[in-house]
Amino acid sequence: MICILKAGTTEAQKQMLIKWFEDQGLRVHEYEDENQTVLGLIGDTSGIDVEMLEMLENVERVAMISEPFKKANRKFHPEDSVIQVENAKIGGGEFAVIAGPCSVESEEQIIEVAKQVKAAGATMLRGGAFKPRTSPYDFQGLKDEGLKLLLEAKEATGLPIVTEIMNADHLPLFEDVDVIQVGARNMQNFELLKELGHTNKAILLKRGLANTIKELLMSAEYIMSGGNENIILCERGIRTFETYTRNTLDLSVIPVLHQLTHLPVVVDPSHATGHADLVAPMALAATAGGADGLMIEVHNDPAKALCDGAQSLTPDQFKAMMDKVRKIREVI
Amino acid sequence: MICILKAGTTEAQKQMLIKWFEDQGLRVHEYEDENQTVLGLIGDTSGIDVEMLEMLENVERVAMISEPFKKANRKFHPEDSVIQVENAKIGGGEFAVIAGPCSVESEEQIIEVAKQVKAAGATMLRGGAFKPRTSPYDFQGLKDEGLKLLLEAKEATGLPIVTEIMNADHLPLFEDVDVIQVGARNMQNFELLKELGHTNKAILLKRGLANTIKELLMSAEYIMSGGNENIILCERGIRTFETYTRNTLDLSVIPVLHQLTHLPVVVDPSHATGHADLVAPMALAATAGGADGLMIEVHNDPAKALCDGAQSLTPDQFKAMMDKVRKIREVI
Amino acid sequence: MICILKAGTTEAQKQMLIKWFEDQGLRVHEYEDENQTVLGLIGDTSGIDVEMLEMLENVERVAMISEPFKKANRKFHPEDSVIQVENAKIGGGEFAVIAGPCSVESEEQIIEVAKQVKAAGATMLRGGAFKPRTSPYDFQGLKDEGLKLLLEAKEATGLPIVTEIMNADHLPLFEDVDVIQVGARNMQNFELLKELGHTNKAILLKRGLANTIKELLMSAEYIMSGGNENIILCERGIRTFETYTRNTLDLSVIPVLHQLTHLPVVVDPSHATGHADLVAPMALAATAGGADGLMIEVHNDPAKALCDGAQSLTPDQFKAMMDKVRKIREVI
Amino acid sequence: MICILKAGTTEAQKQMLIKWFEDQGLRVHEYEDENQTVLGLIGDTSGIDVEMLEMLENVERVAMISEPFKKANRKFHPEDSVIQVENAKIGGGEFAVIAGPCSVESEEQIIEVAKQVKAAGATMLRGGAFKPRTSPYDFQGLKDEGLKLLLEAKEATGLPIVTEIMNADHLPLFEDVDVIQVGARNMQNFELLKELGHTNKAILLKRGLANTIKELLMSAEYIMSGGNENIILCERGIRTFETYTRNTLDLSVIPVLHQLTHLPVVVDPSHATGHADLVAPMALAATAGGADGLMIEVHNDPAKALCDGAQSLTPDQFKAMMDKVRKIREVI
Repeated sequence: MICILKAGTTEAQKQMLIKWFEDQGLRVHEYEDENQTVLGLIGDTSGIDVEMLEMLENVERVAMISEPFKKANRKFHPEDSVIQVENAKIGGGEFAVIAGPCSVESEEQIIEVAKQVKAAGATMLRGGAFKPRTSPYDFQGLKDEGLKLLLEAKEATGLPIVTEIMNADHLPLFEDVDVIQVGARNMQNFELLKELGHTNKAILLKRGLANTIKELLMSAEYIMSGGNENIILCERGIRTFETYTRNTLDLSVIPVLHQLTHLPVVVDPSHATGHADLVAPMALAATAGGADGLMIEVHNDPAKALCDGAQSLTPDQFKAMMDKVRKIREVI
Repeated sequence: MICILKAGTTEAQKQMLIKWFEDQGLRVHEYEDENQTVLGLIGDTSGIDVEMLEMLENVERVAMISEPFKKANRKFHPEDSVIQVENAKIGGGEFAVIAGPCSVESEEQIIEVAKQVKAAGATMLRGGAFKPRTSPYDFQGLKDEGLKLLLEAKEATGLPIVTEIMNADHLPLFEDVDVIQVGARNMQNFELLKELGHTNKAILLKRGLANTIKELLMSAEYIMSGGNENIILCERGIRTFETYTRNTLDLSVIPVLHQLTHLPVVVDPSHATGHADLVAPMALAATAGGADGLMIEVHNDPAKALCDGAQSLTPDQFKAMMDKVRKIREVI
Repeated sequence: MICILKAGTTEAQKQMLIKWFEDQGLRVHEYEDENQTVLGLIGDTSGIDVEMLEMLENVERVAMISEPFKKANRKFHPEDSVIQVENAKIGGGEFAVIAGPCSVESEEQIIEVAKQVKAAGATMLRGGAFKPRTSPYDFQGLKDEGLKLLLEAKEATGLPIVTEIMNADHLPLFEDVDVIQVGARNMQNFELLKELGHTNKAILLKRGLANTIKELLMSAEYIMSGGNENIILCERGIRTFETYTRNTLDLSVIPVLHQLTHLPVVVDPSHATGHADLVAPMALAATAGGADGLMIEVHNDPAKALCDGAQSLTPDQFKAMMDKVRKIREVI
Repeated sequence: MICILKAGTTEAQKQMLIKWFEDQGLRVHEYEDENQTVLGLIGDTSGIDVEMLEMLENVERVAMISEPFKKANRKFHPEDSVIQVENAKIGGGEFAVIAGPCSVESEEQIIEVAKQVKAAGATMLRGGAFKPRTSPYDFQGLKDEGLKLLLEAKEATGLPIVTEIMNADHLPLFEDVDVIQVGARNMQNFELLKELGHTNKAILLKRGLANTIKELLMSAEYIMSGGNENIILCERGIRTFETYTRNTLDLSVIPVLHQLTHLPVVVDPSHATGHADLVAPMALAATAGGADGLMIEVHNDPAKALCDGAQSLTPDQFKAMMDKVRKIREVI
């Protein structure tokens, strides 16, 4: 962190500031730059509130040198993290494919899709029981019942299950869920993140609609600071001005996150693009770009899906996509 | 869909119609508009034969409401809503000024600021007890203790209090809070919104970082569909590519929202701009643009504020701003 | 400018770098920060290519301390610039109202509108002769003929004229134009800006659809470095994810630009919002926010306008708006 | 609007229909599609009675083309366009790799890089002679001299050259350039596009910083309506709120554009990401996503590059990337 002082700061004022920093346990190194005095702060500056510092009468500006995320930072953990979920692994070279319908609709539907995606090579099953709907009048999911059906599908296929939690109060219901998903709209639901930090479940953390890479890592940091380090990051498209696609899939986060953090990164091209015919090309692109996994919506009858049918692949389309994904993986 | 009844429709005839709609699985919201009774229908109206409906003896006209928000829709409620909070009012010509520090820090601080903003013309006091911090390592607020101090400030000044809730589990602590604030990052925390819909507290709903006007109204709809119609909408800047300001304050939402909804709209130029010297100009702009109120951060010693000091006004700056705001109000 | 070196840089490598900087005429001040060596560069760093510097093997990162715009910078010119256009002035307390139709359509239309806006208090007349149309199949403007008609309107009313140039080749035709407008899509048409820098016409420079405040000032810098310092900056809305308005009007640029530059700032709420009923509220907001002027589209028959009728005010609406604008000006 | 003729329509009958359309002020573009003749109509078709048209003996069907782009529209030209540039091809299964330095700096540099990229598999050489620099104080390119050096490199290697034009006035200098590039900031420089429409050079049209897919196609339409149909579209990242990458590379445009238009689509991951270590992963992702080609910045000594060195690959890095690109192509 560096602290640039305003022109006209007196020696006495500067010394007062330096002493204040030293009282915080920091070492101060000062130099002059174009009539401005710059104080370089060395030490643990994580407890310093930058805005407060910038309000001081003599301070012109503060610039951060080090990232605010620590536990999630690759500098603190140089090896890739490999997240184990039953027999499936994600990260450190291990590729995961999480597939299933947007919502769990019935026993028949979820078991049927589970079998088909497993046959095509999926390593985990997704399905929504608690749905985040923008309108209070839309189908909100089967809830408890949906979780039970997912477990039945797990029994039938052996696929671990990934499903979204909307409220920390529901945690007891998620006992048998293998990976708890935090949806994009809850990426900064700090209370929920704190609670999840106290569990030891694997957490699939989706990037928010308009959250930066740094904010994504700070949300991971929230969970990790609570004690739970089993996090899978997920890119699902960000909000931009373009309207032809539902969101703008930002695949460059894959190599950026691999540099910044040791946590694995998966990509959800279904929610990102919003259109079934864009899913396979983007899944292949994500795989070629180095993703640690994919999350794909698959429904046996997309036209009748209770939500997001437009972006769901049929089992056949999923299978065709998986054949190509495997080949891309061999190249990478 | 709204169903406008002919003048002269009897009470009995109206009730029969309402019952018929309810039998279709619809909820009916009735209101008077310029001597006509209007029935607003909420639910799946796709099965209703509009022509048949218009043939009914008592029906003047049927209009489709294409917007997905109903209770929040001005077409359902043509008159401005005036939200009453103790002696303060917002909406329908009544202007509210909510002022106070970003966080409650101490008894002395909150009471001092409360007195100063009241003297300058504020109609409500804001202060954060539960703070949403992007980093788990930042000050998270005084919590319970913070709420108690806010109540002391209310006792000392008579100002109703506005403070943010982070978790529905905390609701019992908010018994004596006058206006419960939903922060930008929780605008689509649907579980929280549902719970707030079951209270009768006034809710100040902040627009999310990258949420559309339509999404803001759908979040209001979530709360209203739970039974609580006391909502104040708040524009606090949206996320764009520009980095000179913390967010981009979108003042055009004021006239847009006034067209779409009957709910009042306030503006928070403090969080929107992030810089104290931009707050007053934007507060004046918002007032001139027709806002129903302002939410301003004021701190007696911004340099020492525990959060967001950079955007806080001193009491003197706040007073100077209020003098101009009053004059702008006279013009509008 | 500061230059942060990678951990592991040897003494010899560091000295080589220091010598290289000194050969550039810079003074170097070095210090250690958390195991990193930081070199503070003092002097004219404007000739240094930051990206090149960041590519050097030992350089971790470079941070700018000073703004890249000089002539446009208030630090170089503390007094407000007042741009004189015939009898009208903009800046330094002088307020300009530029009004007129989107396109010049006929002699009758332009002279009629010119008279009406002048009567209502406009200080300059706008009208498009060369139109930038997104589709090659849309009306491209009356061109030469349009310019002639604008001059006739000037003769009839005394209003100086503001009109857009699309191509430096057309400059000879703009002899009698008082203010040459650079449209949003041409804000970074550097070749055009260079040419305009060689004229002494007042230039109205519109901010690009998605250009930052800094880029706007760099485009002004392009013109000023050519010798022409008569620049009026114009905010016309930026592109965001919101679709209810045509663009998002960013009024906070008014105080930000007033801090950064001495050039005057006007606001175009017509193109920003795209809807006539949002224009007046936003014009009042802009005026209250401290703008040095407004640019408003006015058409005597918006329904029949050849372009952008939806955002045009009728002369009566313009007059009503001007009455309120004057009152807001008295307060500010 | 397109008018599909019945099988068996004679030449004379077709000509009569075409003449009738032209008499309506429309331009007619005819093509064969699966044994049917289709007439694409360009112009104001609002006065045409669709039912009457469909009643004509030879007309099978009429389809409205809601998109404002016609010549660029796949509905007008169902087959992929293959752009031929000397011996290189792009589109319709043919993959192009355009590589070279950001700027042409010297004879030695450009010829050296040209040889290296050719050896690694590049099919065209890029290099900037006229550089668009955000600051008037930055290196603006070698201009004429730069073009001459590019031609020398072409002679030495046989690689066709791609270079950016900043101003239609420079067209005479571009006689021997094989592909003329329109930079992102000039995507809506309509005057330039009109001029380029009058040449028969291949045009590489870059998507603007914040331009939609539809606007990109309308800019292509500008060029095509002038008579030049040799257009290569290029995605180079869009502007969003994320700051870790220079722009946000939007790879989903590849399948979207392939649906909407017959023109080929290449991807520039260098300008999109701004960081050399993100280029290869994104190039692979683009290839896997179905791009018709790549445009990569390669410099023999990025640290000393006069511009954008941070995003340039060394020849070795480029070669390694090409090896993987070829393998991905085999899978796709």
